[in-house]
Amino acid sequence: MNQRQVRIIELKESILKNNDTDADALREETKRSHLSYVNVMSSPGSGKTTAILALLRALQGDLRCGVCEADIDSDVDARTVLAAGFPAVQLHTGGMCHLDAQMSRQGLSALGTKDLDCVILENVGNLVCPAEFDTGADLNLVILSVPEGDDKPLKYPLVFARADAVLVNKMDALPAFDFSLEKCTENIRLRNADIPVFPISARTGEGIPEAAAFVRRHVEERISDLS
Amino acid sequence: MNQRQVRIIELKESILKNNDTDADALREETKRSHLSYVNVMSSPGSGKTTAILALLRALQGDLRCGVCEADIDSDVDARTVLAAGFPAVQLHTGGMCHLDAQMSRQGLSALGTKDLDCVILENVGNLVCPAEFDTGADLNLVILSVPEGDDKPLKYPLVFARADAVLVNKMDALPAFDFSLEKCTENIRLRNADIPVFPISARTGEGIPEAAAFVRRHVEERISDLS
Repeated sequence: MNQRQVRIIELKESILKNNDTDADALREETKRSHLSYVNVMSSPGSGKTTAILALLRALQGDLRCGVCEADIDSDVDARTVLAAGFPAVQLHTGGMCHLDAQMSRQGLSALGTKDLDCVILENVGNLVCPAEFDTGADLNLVILSVPEGDDKPLKYPLVFARADAVLVNKMDALPAFDFSLEKCTENIRLRNADIPVFPISARTGEGIPEAAAFVRRHVEERISDLS
Repeated sequence: MNQRQVRIIELKESILKNNDTDADALREETKRSHLSYVNVMSSPGSGKTTAILALLRALQGDLRCGVCEADIDSDVDARTVLAAGFPAVQLHTGGMCHLDAQMSRQGLSALGTKDLDCVILENVGNLVCPAEFDTGADLNLVILSVPEGDDKPLKYPLVFARADAVLVNKMDALPAFDFSLEKCTENIRLRNADIPVFPISARTGEGIPEAAAFVRRHVEERISDLS
């Protein structure tokens, strides 16, 4: 099989009643396998795929990373990641607006994690539903982009409360928008007091080393915990 | 009561099994009341509130409009609309990612529609779930903004298939982004062949007269149908 061909996985709905228990179990399993599973959530169009690619490039050499791309439809994101030379599968949620732990399992298994230290999940573009379902990830990142506005943490509180860090993307577009990083950070910390906030531009590379260092530190701690 | 004070309506979940039937019934009822109910869907941060305000101002004098603002939390949008002098209520979905017909009824009833020709619903910012539930609206608009990217219709097909028109917002930000209006329109029409696409900038006012004329034509046809 052509390694660059996109594999599309049609996800099946979970048969497990208790997603939280299953998510905890998945975290235990990945930990035993010295694997980190990083869930990235954002609105559609916040630049998730470009930001993930920038992080993958910054982590290359230190960590072996792969990507599960989740979407209602299309395979454009997995194609982009594969074309950049990283392992990726496209997960189709069949109209569903989120991923749960059981769907994460299907994705990880389809991708194959034996030779990986870290799998990044690009969740469905949506600030509401993905926050309500634990994917079993051990690190949750939220990307918010400058054009969306600095008031979004007030309107979508749960996803910001669930995050371990927020990446504020498209900082290069700041001059074109009425957006205050200070106000945005303040609004995020109303929901999540001590959370790190990284201003980045996936396009220019601004802030990517700092955000990548945060992810690297987390993954290294996790995968070294059992060595 | 201070007219400019925001009323927040905590929506109750629907007890009706068949939302589609209820949505049809609501459309019949609003039609008999010579009322048009316009559902606006988009991602978080696409500029929905600013675009709705621009439309309200363009329609003022011709149509009496009010707004139902739906959000998980916060009342920032209803405050903005009220401050501009238009009737508005804030609907809280209690964590839910969409509105159905029964929730629409609660909103319309809280707003009061006796002296209105048109009520605009600003749906929860989300390109997935709102498309799956018929709100009972007689006109469905989708706002997509330039920073989100021209590939979004490929990734969120249902919401574009359900739309009666698409407003492409933040056209003033075009120079800062890699976005093709032609490609975007092509992608939208893959899902919805003959749909009108209006390039607009809610900030500069570009394209607002054309988009407002489209809404006005629809509302006037609907409310005059029974006269």
